[in-house]
Amino acid sequence: MAKDEITKGYTWIGTTPDRPDGLDKVTGRARYGADFSLPNMLHGAVVRSPHAHARIVKIDATKALALTGVKAVVTRADLPTGLTGEDLYLQENTLAGEKALYDGHAVAAVAATTALIAQDAAKLIEVEYEVLPHVTDVDEAMKPDAPVILPGCADHSVPEGSAPNVARYIDFGRGDLDAGFAEADVVRSAHYTTEATHQGYIEPHAAVGQMGADGKGEMWVCTQGQWYIRKMCSAVLGTDPAQLRVTPSEIGGGFGGKTTIFMEPLPLALSKKAGGRPVKMVMTRAEVLRATGPTASASMDVKMGMKKDGTITAARVDFRMQGGPFPGASPVGEALSCAFACYDIPNLGHHGWEVLANRPKCAAYRAPGSPMAAYAVESMVDELCRELGLDPIEVRLKNGVKEGTRASFGPKYKRIGLVETLEAAKAHPNYAVELGPNQGRGVASGFWFNHGGETSVSMAITEDGTAQVSVGTPDIGGSRASIALMAAETLGIPYENVRVNIVETGALGVNEPTHGSRATFASGKAMWEAAQGAIKEMCKRAAQKWDIDPEAVTWKDGAAHPAGENAGKFEPMTIKEIAAEMGKTGGPISGHHESTPSGAGPSFGTHVVDVEVDPETGHTKVLRYLVVQDAGTAIHPAYVEGQYQGGAAQGIGWALNEAYIYGQDGRLQNPIFLDYRMPVASDLPMIDTVIVEVPNPGHPFGVRGVGETGITPPLPALANAIHAATGARLRKLPMNPPAVLAAIRAKG
Amino acid sequence: MAKDEITKGYTWIGTTPDRPDGLDKVTGRARYGADFSLPNMLHGAVVRSPHAHARIVKIDATKALALTGVKAVVTRADLPTGLTGEDLYLQENTLAGEKALYDGHAVAAVAATTALIAQDAAKLIEVEYEVLPHVTDVDEAMKPDAPVILPGCADHSVPEGSAPNVARYIDFGRGDLDAGFAEADVVRSAHYTTEATHQGYIEPHAAVGQMGADGKGEMWVCTQGQWYIRKMCSAVLGTDPAQLRVTPSEIGGGFGGKTTIFMEPLPLALSKKAGGRPVKMVMTRAEVLRATGPTASASMDVKMGMKKDGTITAARVDFRMQGGPFPGASPVGEALSCAFACYDIPNLGHHGWEVLANRPKCAAYRAPGSPMAAYAVESMVDELCRELGLDPIEVRLKNGVKEGTRASFGPKYKRIGLVETLEAAKAHPNYAVELGPNQGRGVASGFWFNHGGETSVSMAITEDGTAQVSVGTPDIGGSRASIALMAAETLGIPYENVRVNIVETGALGVNEPTHGSRATFASGKAMWEAAQGAIKEMCKRAAQKWDIDPEAVTWKDGAAHPAGENAGKFEPMTIKEIAAEMGKTGGPISGHHESTPSGAGPSFGTHVVDVEVDPETGHTKVLRYLVVQDAGTAIHPAYVEGQYQGGAAQGIGWALNEAYIYGQDGRLQNPIFLDYRMPVASDLPMIDTVIVEVPNPGHPFGVRGVGETGITPPLPALANAIHAATGARLRKLPMNPPAVLAAIRAKG
Repeated sequence: MAKDEITKGYTWIGTTPDRPDGLDKVTGRARYGADFSLPNMLHGAVVRSPHAHARIVKIDATKALALTGVKAVVTRADLPTGLTGEDLYLQENTLAGEKALYDGHAVAAVAATTALIAQDAAKLIEVEYEVLPHVTDVDEAMKPDAPVILPGCADHSVPEGSAPNVARYIDFGRGDLDAGFAEADVVRSAHYTTEATHQGYIEPHAAVGQMGADGKGEMWVCTQGQWYIRKMCSAVLGTDPAQLRVTPSEIGGGFGGKTTIFMEPLPLALSKKAGGRPVKMVMTRAEVLRATGPTASASMDVKMGMKKDGTITAARVDFRMQGGPFPGASPVGEALSCAFACYDIPNLGHHGWEVLANRPKCAAYRAPGSPMAAYAVESMVDELCRELGLDPIEVRLKNGVKEGTRASFGPKYKRIGLVETLEAAKAHPNYAVELGPNQGRGVASGFWFNHGGETSVSMAITEDGTAQVSVGTPDIGGSRASIALMAAETLGIPYENVRVNIVETGALGVNEPTHGSRATFASGKAMWEAAQGAIKEMCKRAAQKWDIDPEAVTWKDGAAHPAGENAGKFEPMTIKEIAAEMGKTGGPISGHHESTPSGAGPSFGTHVVDVEVDPETGHTKVLRYLVVQDAGTAIHPAYVEGQYQGGAAQGIGWALNEAYIYGQDGRLQNPIFLDYRMPVASDLPMIDTVIVEVPNPGHPFGVRGVGETGITPPLPALANAIHAATGARLRKLPMNPPAVLAAIRAKG
Repeated sequence: MAKDEITKGYTWIGTTPDRPDGLDKVTGRARYGADFSLPNMLHGAVVRSPHAHARIVKIDATKALALTGVKAVVTRADLPTGLTGEDLYLQENTLAGEKALYDGHAVAAVAATTALIAQDAAKLIEVEYEVLPHVTDVDEAMKPDAPVILPGCADHSVPEGSAPNVARYIDFGRGDLDAGFAEADVVRSAHYTTEATHQGYIEPHAAVGQMGADGKGEMWVCTQGQWYIRKMCSAVLGTDPAQLRVTPSEIGGGFGGKTTIFMEPLPLALSKKAGGRPVKMVMTRAEVLRATGPTASASMDVKMGMKKDGTITAARVDFRMQGGPFPGASPVGEALSCAFACYDIPNLGHHGWEVLANRPKCAAYRAPGSPMAAYAVESMVDELCRELGLDPIEVRLKNGVKEGTRASFGPKYKRIGLVETLEAAKAHPNYAVELGPNQGRGVASGFWFNHGGETSVSMAITEDGTAQVSVGTPDIGGSRASIALMAAETLGIPYENVRVNIVETGALGVNEPTHGSRATFASGKAMWEAAQGAIKEMCKRAAQKWDIDPEAVTWKDGAAHPAGENAGKFEPMTIKEIAAEMGKTGGPISGHHESTPSGAGPSFGTHVVDVEVDPETGHTKVLRYLVVQDAGTAIHPAYVEGQYQGGAAQGIGWALNEAYIYGQDGRLQNPIFLDYRMPVASDLPMIDTVIVEVPNPGHPFGVRGVGETGITPPLPALANAIHAATGARLRKLPMNPPAVLAAIRAKG
């Protein structure tokens, strides 16, 4: 379907009304994780390992417990034993067992009547460590003689004789690589590396937890997924998930980093030990950086062959990623699948290794794995384009995937919009701007799968004929607005008459978190289904009143109408009229839907960036930045634009400055925002956006999901632009001034 | 169905496991209305009229607003105009308009940074009153020349020429009264009066409200009905109900008094005026007694004719009740309907007048209207029994209603249990105890309709095969336990594997409050329907796995089974196995139900009380007390017993001591618990109970509802017992020592 076909006639979809959370956020009324308080509440603090790798010989909390105001100390000994697999790793990450596995790894937690007493008490907990050799670099960690982090970590995929920190090996491809490379006019290979970066959400992790001796608990927490919090905390603590009610707070950013647990089981464990008193815990920024999930650091090889006309004949990637000290946390699988997702290449090879290292356990970060993969692959495509003197957009158009192309990771694409983003980028004025000295232009495309996931949504009609929608996906990027717009469209009532509520776990069936760009897609789709149920019931009430067959009633413009001449002549019954009577005509009216929806539409984007590099300092100034991305249908265009700009901003930070810096001692050297250099407003130009709309056939309104792809192209686009400006190819991130200066000087 | 037929084979129903809220309540973990706090929260206080009736000339808040820390003052001028009917009365009761209508009527409210500042500020708000003549007594208020409270208050039912404070007149009956009285051997009539009493819940009204300039609000409040709070506050404030999310707290008693609003709109109005900062308001006990809803005071005439064999031939009641200064608040209609609900009398007359008075607006109180009616009618039955020398239980058995009897208020009874309660009372050892000097025994029966009401319930299966039930009826008498037991029974899983959550308005369709003894009946019935939906889906998942027709799967003992030989041979799939896979087999599994259920089963009870009256002081000691009541099915017998005992205790207090005492100035003289004399533990014996189970055919498990009938018989039972002990008939409540002494002395 072309845009006109799907969007024509919409009343609400595609408009940009006030955000439901706007006033709350600008007036300070929004309640974030740290804003909950309860009577009799305690405050918690965590004792963290100062060593990257150390055996825990002894923990002595005597002095801490003697401090007035201290109510409970928990260590690993307070948690149940016998867990396996991911549950065990979650527990191990919550509180270290035999060994502390990274700088900042939690070793004990304490609850006291004030936060200051808790912090003092944490200092009084004496931990005796036997320091062990450590490894934090991904390539070092892959060496056969590297310090062993988790003996026996390898799963069945790992070949015999692999190095001891290799936890997983992935290998897939198609065609004949040798033949493919032989067909090419130019074959190049190169090595690329990226450092770990953090999601950098404004709001640190915060929670208030309460758990009684009866195993019943409640938690108010800043999270992307209250059901995951419920499931994971219950697993770590050995309690029954249905007995834990988790209420999500407003959320000050997550970007994937709040889809899992870090300290969240601790307030519950402390509460249980403190006789059920509620316990509040709020991480400091240093704790967030040291002990919550950054991205993986990656060591990547790319080999690619291209014909003179730009046809890519074969390509192979070898990705090594460390995801911290536990298996399963690195996004190496996703990185491999994303690597060539934009290209139709007949001969492909993918090889990936997940490696353990003495670093915090990785979490998802916006399109996890895709930015690293794009950095390597899109840089290499650019290298080949330059060598062959080809336009980078034309080459991508030549090789780009379309409806019906078999994706590099397997399935055939349905309707997708990569080509449309490339055409729009080519046509955009930014692509025609003449550049001056020391200036260069970079282009790159990016991809994300998008996701369905378990979803439960209910819609209830209010007695005054407005509607409320209960969803389980926290609103991190505008889903309250987008779902309200779709609900208004579906019911035929004003946007202002819909309220979308993010509800606690005790009030709705299971929901996966807001991740994988799924909230507007999956909760929106389930809302649509739920609305059909409510509409059907409203038509039934009208039919009852008119004494006609319910099948002879249709719903239009917020009212029940007789369907055609034969149904009878009746004035339409509005939702307001039906709702006012519903108690007497059969009871409250609601609609519900639960599913794990298929049909998530893949997302593609193309970015064009112009930079100017100062040859004296190596500083890269971003002159102009263009994001072109396929939204499917842009439900609330201003929010879509915000997602595009936010993704690009984070990608620019990752490309140019952000990085985890570890010392020789294995400790994180920059766990504050002064040293962990995120972009600030003055670092960025206005980011231009073009919203391409190629509706997703798998969604009633064509939604794809717009949250993630935007972070992927900036890494290679900037590398390509810096190369264009300087002639120096930077194959290692971040491309900060010293690195760029060194590259310029190395080039000579 | 006899008990054995319906209850045999139950695993969970009829057992008495730990209460879900037990540990919370005994450890102080339960959060009541005043236990919520938010950052940046203000505290509110109310300025109340010191006059029973006064014109408000001027309100000057200048000095209050000048006090440091004061953030907002609201008066009636801040509320929207143009409301009508009940909405207008709710608004008028929230904040007085032109006139203050009773002692304690709210006139203004103030919010400040601390509760103490708010109280100080309230004192600085200067209100100029023009005091008007007042009337607080129901009979005085009915006089033609009484001070007029609300000009034009009479509705269409009131005959021309009635007194100006008569707001409503009700008149119904059947048969031929004159002929009926002519048939009788004895005809007697008498006048009875009762004073207003308060529900006396432990927890005063408390709420935290927040409302922004965008009309979006939230409230945490102690209530029996979060949707009523939402609807009523929205009506008073002129906002959209769907934009207000109301979360009920744990509730420290309600008994009907928390089904409506009193101060609840004020924190929202103050918050809106204070820029959206949350505002907490907690009533004092004096505010609760002066300005929340007590019962009506009543002036009642009963006339009854009886044959020598005990047959009641005709009866007539004339009830006058004041319900405060607004129409619609008195329970005179219910009182009339309850008056003869226990009796099959061919000739009946009912006349009722609702009268306005300068008193707080009445609210429901446990079987509203029924205790007063029973006091009059059951006293009169006793008077006739004594006169004719008949046993009071035999007379009730002779005239008692049964299945098929046409009720005094209209419909035919389905299966009911009055006779069974009378038989059980007669057979109980208490009825055979020999009495000593100054001792007497009283018997009375009582009735309550029970209620269905708008109900929405959802059940969600947790990923570990446990279940959660979302209900909208706050648990004031054990409904979390009773619904969990029924859910366990329905699903075939352990009670411990069910959690019942009382959810906020934003998470579920509309629900009426917990009133009319409806929670276990209506939410339980809706839970059963919702569970059928979840079970159907679970059977479908099993059928999918087995690749057979879903119709060929049945649910039994917490598992899906192939239905019979032809369905195929498969091992049963347990709920645990189905739940673990649900994300992959189609999505989350839930069931839902919305309805306004019919089939609420009327409730009857018979009480037997023995007293000893001290002829020197008039003090009545309750020697033993027996409650026999039909529960339908007792889901959690200990909770049922608690309801019976609680109802009796409140009825005993009402009978013997409790009363609103108004001074000549129209002000309440006893607005504290030292002077408003509720029974304490030492006033009461152990209250014996017999749970009769005559299952209600309108409920899947036979539930009737047990909360209300128990308060009805104590008033007449005690009057009858005191008469038996002293020979003095007390036709006015309370029967406190001075009143009893006076009656003994008057008798001579």
